[in-house]
Amino acid sequence: MFFPEPLTDNEVALRTREGHVLTFTLKNNLTTTLLDNSSLDLTSAKFQVSADKRFVLLAYNIRPVFSQSFTASYAIYSVANGDLLELSPLERETTELQYASWGPQGNQLAFVFDGDIYYKPNAASNPLRLTSTDEDQKVVNGLSDWTYEEEVLLTYAAHWWSMDGARLAYLRINNSATPVMEIPHFLGGLYPSNMIFPYPKAGSSIPSVSLFVVNLYGPAHTLEMLPPDSLRARENYISMVNWISSTRLSVRWLNRAQNQSVLCVCEATTGACSEKHKMAMDIMQNQRQDVPLFTSDGSMFYTILPAKQGARGEFHHIAGLTVQPATPSVPPRFLTSGSWDVTLLCALDENAGKIYFLSTEESRESRHLYSVDLNGVFQRHCISCDLIDGCGFFKAVFSPNQTHFILYCLGPGIPKVTVHSTRDPSSYVILEDNNPMSEALEDKRLPESLFRTVQADNHDLHLKLSLPQGYEANLLPLLIMVDGTPGSQTVSERFSLGWPQVLCSTHNVALAWVDGRSGVGRGQKTVVMDPRKLGLLKVKDYLGVIELLMQLPYIDDRRIALYGKALGGYLTLKMLAATDKLFQCTAAVAPITDFRLYSAAFSERYLGPPAKEEHAYLTASVLEDVNKLKDENFLILHGTADARVHFQHSAELLSRLVKVEANYSLQLYPDEGHILREPRSIKHFQRTVVNYLQNCLKHSTLLDAPEEEAEEDD
Amino acid sequence: MFFPEPLTDNEVALRTREGHVLTFTLKNNLTTTLLDNSSLDLTSAKFQVSADKRFVLLAYNIRPVFSQSFTASYAIYSVANGDLLELSPLERETTELQYASWGPQGNQLAFVFDGDIYYKPNAASNPLRLTSTDEDQKVVNGLSDWTYEEEVLLTYAAHWWSMDGARLAYLRINNSATPVMEIPHFLGGLYPSNMIFPYPKAGSSIPSVSLFVVNLYGPAHTLEMLPPDSLRARENYISMVNWISSTRLSVRWLNRAQNQSVLCVCEATTGACSEKHKMAMDIMQNQRQDVPLFTSDGSMFYTILPAKQGARGEFHHIAGLTVQPATPSVPPRFLTSGSWDVTLLCALDENAGKIYFLSTEESRESRHLYSVDLNGVFQRHCISCDLIDGCGFFKAVFSPNQTHFILYCLGPGIPKVTVHSTRDPSSYVILEDNNPMSEALEDKRLPESLFRTVQADNHDLHLKLSLPQGYEANLLPLLIMVDGTPGSQTVSERFSLGWPQVLCSTHNVALAWVDGRSGVGRGQKTVVMDPRKLGLLKVKDYLGVIELLMQLPYIDDRRIALYGKALGGYLTLKMLAATDKLFQCTAAVAPITDFRLYSAAFSERYLGPPAKEEHAYLTASVLEDVNKLKDENFLILHGTADARVHFQHSAELLSRLVKVEANYSLQLYPDEGHILREPRSIKHFQRTVVNYLQNCLKHSTLLDAPEEEAEEDD
Repeated sequence: MFFPEPLTDNEVALRTREGHVLTFTLKNNLTTTLLDNSSLDLTSAKFQVSADKRFVLLAYNIRPVFSQSFTASYAIYSVANGDLLELSPLERETTELQYASWGPQGNQLAFVFDGDIYYKPNAASNPLRLTSTDEDQKVVNGLSDWTYEEEVLLTYAAHWWSMDGARLAYLRINNSATPVMEIPHFLGGLYPSNMIFPYPKAGSSIPSVSLFVVNLYGPAHTLEMLPPDSLRARENYISMVNWISSTRLSVRWLNRAQNQSVLCVCEATTGACSEKHKMAMDIMQNQRQDVPLFTSDGSMFYTILPAKQGARGEFHHIAGLTVQPATPSVPPRFLTSGSWDVTLLCALDENAGKIYFLSTEESRESRHLYSVDLNGVFQRHCISCDLIDGCGFFKAVFSPNQTHFILYCLGPGIPKVTVHSTRDPSSYVILEDNNPMSEALEDKRLPESLFRTVQADNHDLHLKLSLPQGYEANLLPLLIMVDGTPGSQTVSERFSLGWPQVLCSTHNVALAWVDGRSGVGRGQKTVVMDPRKLGLLKVKDYLGVIELLMQLPYIDDRRIALYGKALGGYLTLKMLAATDKLFQCTAAVAPITDFRLYSAAFSERYLGPPAKEEHAYLTASVLEDVNKLKDENFLILHGTADARVHFQHSAELLSRLVKVEANYSLQLYPDEGHILREPRSIKHFQRTVVNYLQNCLKHSTLLDAPEEEAEEDD
Repeated sequence: MFFPEPLTDNEVALRTREGHVLTFTLKNNLTTTLLDNSSLDLTSAKFQVSADKRFVLLAYNIRPVFSQSFTASYAIYSVANGDLLELSPLERETTELQYASWGPQGNQLAFVFDGDIYYKPNAASNPLRLTSTDEDQKVVNGLSDWTYEEEVLLTYAAHWWSMDGARLAYLRINNSATPVMEIPHFLGGLYPSNMIFPYPKAGSSIPSVSLFVVNLYGPAHTLEMLPPDSLRARENYISMVNWISSTRLSVRWLNRAQNQSVLCVCEATTGACSEKHKMAMDIMQNQRQDVPLFTSDGSMFYTILPAKQGARGEFHHIAGLTVQPATPSVPPRFLTSGSWDVTLLCALDENAGKIYFLSTEESRESRHLYSVDLNGVFQRHCISCDLIDGCGFFKAVFSPNQTHFILYCLGPGIPKVTVHSTRDPSSYVILEDNNPMSEALEDKRLPESLFRTVQADNHDLHLKLSLPQGYEANLLPLLIMVDGTPGSQTVSERFSLGWPQVLCSTHNVALAWVDGRSGVGRGQKTVVMDPRKLGLLKVKDYLGVIELLMQLPYIDDRRIALYGKALGGYLTLKMLAATDKLFQCTAAVAPITDFRLYSAAFSERYLGPPAKEEHAYLTASVLEDVNKLKDENFLILHGTADARVHFQHSAELLSRLVKVEANYSLQLYPDEGHILREPRSIKHFQRTVVNYLQNCLKHSTLLDAPEEEAEEDD
């Protein structure tokens, strides 16, 4: 997959399969080549086109840091004359930058070096240093640290241009009180080295964060956006920043416990922020980053709120809220209703009087793009329904003035990218058809998908089965793909083709995904749940569904296996501990084994502060379960440089498994992180998991024969 | 096993199986209890009796550092009144010491704290600080650093009392230029921690060393023993220090390349050292620590030197050398001769005109204690021959004036410890009979041992086979115990009872140990060998012997396995790479995979400086062989906190194995070192290795069936 970016209301910049960088003009279907693949060898480089299309910013020597972040060297390519200009702060030799990107006007540009933001009014001008922090690397401006990238903002960039390019808002994240994690790197040197970064584990000091706005036109001056009194001097996170006009920002503050969020509007010219909406966070929804859509006059905003739908329970719908006067007694006005969920607000078009959004109205497994009128009877219209063949699961990105949008069809067929005019969405241009993939798969027998909703423990549980063609005639082993991320939806029509599908179609293994009682479409009986019991309930949900699955005529109930990563790996081990040789085998990748060792932002969200919730942490830990894991068959896989689930988790588990003389297998990926990077590591990983599962699922009969144990004295 | 210590010429101090600390007087067979097991709970404590037997030094809270070193708290127990006195430097709260021990007179005592030596003239006096070094921990006085403990002195203590207790000689080891190794410790904390210590890898700066003598009687003054001019300003090691009179020391300096040694006599009163004997080091003999025996007037010394024995080649014999005048032209006078080796000089008794020594005269596999007259026809007498039932492999420790000696019978029967009067060795007292072990083994069918000498590549190779009783009637799988330590002898009568013997007697696996063309008893055709080819030759020797073993009527040539640790693990992998599925399976523990990552003192001894010998290092590395290992079946086991063969070795290997998609198994021991400490880790290790080998050696027939491989795309 590749991702084009909307440039202006008429144009899209994109990189072709052959490596050319083009702009594509919608009204006349014309393409203009900005950068030819022959002019530079930039196979592994990333590109970005300036707002005025006169320059292309190229990132090369890219070195990944965490899941999204990377350092790189940057060069500016001039479309007019083909010149290349290195991007670098003045008087510095090194050109390894933490980040660089164009602003929304002309060819203004900002980059981050050594934790400080630099601004170039245009591609040719000298950079202006906007921030100055200590050398000690504990403060970073304009970028996320580990916590913000992985747990709070979920983006690497932590700065936001105002639409007119006149102002830049940025976070300053200070980790001077945060303990650091050291990750050993074993390879390539005479002596191993350490990667050191602030990583607050449960109960540790978290980064302190402040929001600033700097004026870019005229002499630069910087103002701090001051949080409302209720938030001052308390530990908190900033989980969302968004410009709603050229001088106003919407900002969401979140308390450390992450159960209360405060939506504010800040005046960039004064730094004053006023509280607009306070709400309890729904831990199951992970909606901390939801961006509310404000009207241009700032008098109203639209956001997604839970709304009771009669006896069917609460579903998520679009609510309009009035900002001025801030009377909290005015109830929100709902624009949508029904027993389905609005999952994302895409754009607000005030002129047309519409909001564009994604929802599950068509089916829980689908995502379609809809519009709803802001007034009248709130007429709703499905834009993407029956629009593109084989597509039912969409993502949409709108151009600045909503004149066009890019539709990412993510399934159930082979993914496609199209660009549509908002006025007439049915006439569109295909930007990516993934034809090579379609051709490669033409004669392959891909698995069939079945969706089911089942009842367990009085709750609706959703289920996706992938089955090899002709499955009814066989007795198939079953692999449960365990995913634990709260609020995530694994039962969907998203296209996926990886080792699980290979296992299914080549080795005749049935695959199952399960959505428990969290996530979208929860419907009736949504009760306030003790988040500390989340893991327990997930295990219960999975085991309930598995019991039902084992009764299917084509499933061999003596050949069931589990696979899970991170929280999913954690759940697989918990499921193993809760059962007795129910599962033939289990592959747990980078499993969390003790939430005290996991990130503060995650662990505390569900389990609370460890000093107060000692019992909850102890109960949640897998380390106390080793005696129940002792005789189960499982494989642990872990990258030794995993910055998210530290290898420490597996080390603590292994050390206890050794003590109880448990049986298990182990596969390490030296210096690999939470996401494997080396193509050969990925291949090895896939082969290892497939071989392991396939081998153990092949031998159901062996289960009955008592295995011989070696007996010996010391 | 336990080790008594000779106290005076009449007494031995020892700890009974029940935990009492006693002295045993030889002339009247009387025992005196110094410390009752009921008076203190000191199950895991170590003890030491002062020279005057008035005090017992107890070490507790013992925390191992490297293979021998440990930190501990110490207390002095007074035999007279049962008082316990904590040992601690003045004005310091912590009492964790690096070392403490009695001196040879009265109850004088020395200890090391924070790299500095402290002296107590008696148990009750205040400690005097003898050295003062910087706080930075890069200098240690009186103790070995990693390099000296593991590679040079092979002892933790690096200080030596003069016999009259008036002087203390000590090394000052300065690691300020040595790179440090960081070993991650994963367990027990919220954040992992690092153990940091100087560890020179091949080609890195090695510690600089100096020898000092401090006067203990009267005002303390310290003199440096200055090496001869030829050694000054060059990198070198001090590999041996020994008092030869109350004011003179013998010292051996070794150049960094470890191919030249210089034996000096130093005057403690002036610091002047004069060169007495220079010799090329025999890399195969590891005789760097050999202590030459000097006559009391210092005019002569006895040492072990190679001597040509006619056509049979060179063997090691006792040579007497004259010191004054230092005329290098005087040839050594040999006291022994024959086609066998003197392996250790135990004691020189000038009054009786005898040297006591160990040799292989009886058989290459045995070690007997002999005496030889210093004059006349050098009459030789075997002291330990036919002395104790079931004993043929001895170690001996003599009392200060050679009036008695302790004999450690190490095999082939169950080990025993006896004490003998030198005048009449045949009347002795048993200090330890290991009766509990004898009783436990009474009804066990222990393996039988066969010794063979075979010819391969025109060399004698020595071989020990352990076979289950009744082996002739079977077709047995074979496990080769690969040991790579140059100069070591694995084919011996030493008693051994561990997992290999269990594998042999319980699972009917034949075991083989091989001594290649290094080590004792090399005999004829000893040619100067390129040490860089040592590994290659070892592999050749092993493969040669294995070829012969496979022809034995009771060996199944399709079920051969390898086991090796450290250098032995390295050799197993080299043997795998040199063959094609010859070995059914291989267990490699903490294998060295690249000598550039291994210690300077070891790697450079055999391969030379890595900057100059790049090719030799590359050829020696296992990392280049992964393609040849790809389809072999092997298990890697490694402690993640291994301070000798860093986990880095396995990480580099794993990373390459992943790249070639090799098949292998892995077992890690989190936070365990080169020697496993936790009893449960040891048990798990034994079970893992036994199960792995037993399982793979059980299924010879599977070899023929082509194994199914999973095929998949990405």
